[in-house]
Amino acid sequence: MRYAAQVAYDGTAYRGFQLQPNGPTIQQMLEEALNRIGGQAVRVTCAGRTDAGVHATGQVIAFDLEWRHPAESLLRALNASLPPDIAVWRVWQAASDFNPRFDAVSRTYVYKVYTADARDPLRWNSAWRITKLLNVHRMNEAAESLVGTHDFLSFGLPPKGENSVRTVHQASWEMPGARDYTFSITANAFLYRMVRVLAATLAQVGQERMTVAEFRVILAARQRGLAAAPAPACGLTLTEVSYQP
Amino acid sequence: MRYAAQVAYDGTAYRGFQLQPNGPTIQQMLEEALNRIGGQAVRVTCAGRTDAGVHATGQVIAFDLEWRHPAESLLRALNASLPPDIAVWRVWQAASDFNPRFDAVSRTYVYKVYTADARDPLRWNSAWRITKLLNVHRMNEAAESLVGTHDFLSFGLPPKGENSVRTVHQASWEMPGARDYTFSITANAFLYRMVRVLAATLAQVGQERMTVAEFRVILAARQRGLAAAPAPACGLTLTEVSYQP
Repeated sequence: MRYAAQVAYDGTAYRGFQLQPNGPTIQQMLEEALNRIGGQAVRVTCAGRTDAGVHATGQVIAFDLEWRHPAESLLRALNASLPPDIAVWRVWQAASDFNPRFDAVSRTYVYKVYTADARDPLRWNSAWRITKLLNVHRMNEAAESLVGTHDFLSFGLPPKGENSVRTVHQASWEMPGARDYTFSITANAFLYRMVRVLAATLAQVGQERMTVAEFRVILAARQRGLAAAPAPACGLTLTEVSYQP
Repeated sequence: MRYAAQVAYDGTAYRGFQLQPNGPTIQQMLEEALNRIGGQAVRVTCAGRTDAGVHATGQVIAFDLEWRHPAESLLRALNASLPPDIAVWRVWQAASDFNPRFDAVSRTYVYKVYTADARDPLRWNSAWRITKLLNVHRMNEAAESLVGTHDFLSFGLPPKGENSVRTVHQASWEMPGARDYTFSITANAFLYRMVRVLAATLAQVGQERMTVAEFRVILAARQRGLAAAPAPACGLTLTEVSYQP
């Protein structure tokens, strides 16, 4: 039987989603938990291979498992077996050919920033601190130019053999607090490190070290090395993956 | 020269504030940083000895240090030397006999709770999860009875040789979100584990497993074993310590 699940995690302690020879990963923790529960070797695939230190509330995974009980009891068994920084929020039966990565029609990521003179240890692993206040209006003006189908090569690398054209459905900044900024972006798919490079480059626009026009020139250039270096992984969370109903 | 400082930390990775033979503590990290900066063995004392896993945004420390530069440069040097989960937010020169613990006139702690069917990995080390919604009105009715000078022996142990009478200035619950609850309490001083035992016992009132009248009986009984077991350390933060101006 094939199952899908929505998974949430604090990525701080892990070397990303995908299995690695050195150090624990989210995939490893999920496979080990399924192995303990089901007594079978289980391979887990995911919708978005998050990097080391990146978090998720809406990661979607799929796996094949012999399980004679309701999906609800699999959910409870998984949460009892997983460490406190990983949780399964939903489990459901999927079509036998369900592929969480290739069947996904869109992904949403959120990137969190705050401004403060000194770092906030209660957010050291969940947001990027910068010292200078951001101009949200200017950042949103620049972010608007991302919406639509573009070649995003200036902002990230495609997987081998793929092109770098992606379709962004929405991209905007909000201020949940007086010194808190949240960048939210939805696209059919993303290039490697694209959201972190976009967040860092848009922050330069917000700090008025780059104009909105310069940002648009970088997008149009389709050339690596013009955009900012990626913002820290800790600020990034994969919040949603959508599928055809 | 004697200095005081306001310190913030994520307590997850530490065995509490005070030096311990096994494992890192906040005091150890601060003393090692001061040692590296000043080239002197430095002893740090604090206002509130927080337990393992407890956080702070308003901890106050004091130490003697030979330092020929402005306090502002000591602040920067400390933050450059401390790990990302500890930060110093303010440094100032203190009277030569300043004692952060005995000179404090009040402390404020905040305890965070959320209700959810499954745990939230993005808050696994910063809030206590319970499954049943809380009745804030009832919890506040019970919390009001804490205000004033009482013998709090039912809710915690005094340090050796001290009595268990304390004066609570304010104690109340708020709901910053639809399923988020924050308990805030200010007192001249607290007994060992008092805030965590109060949070857990008030949560029983909020879950309607204990009446407000029963809570008052426990307070009046001055007897250990009637109150709930302490709520998890991760939900607790020392947010403020006040001194005579």
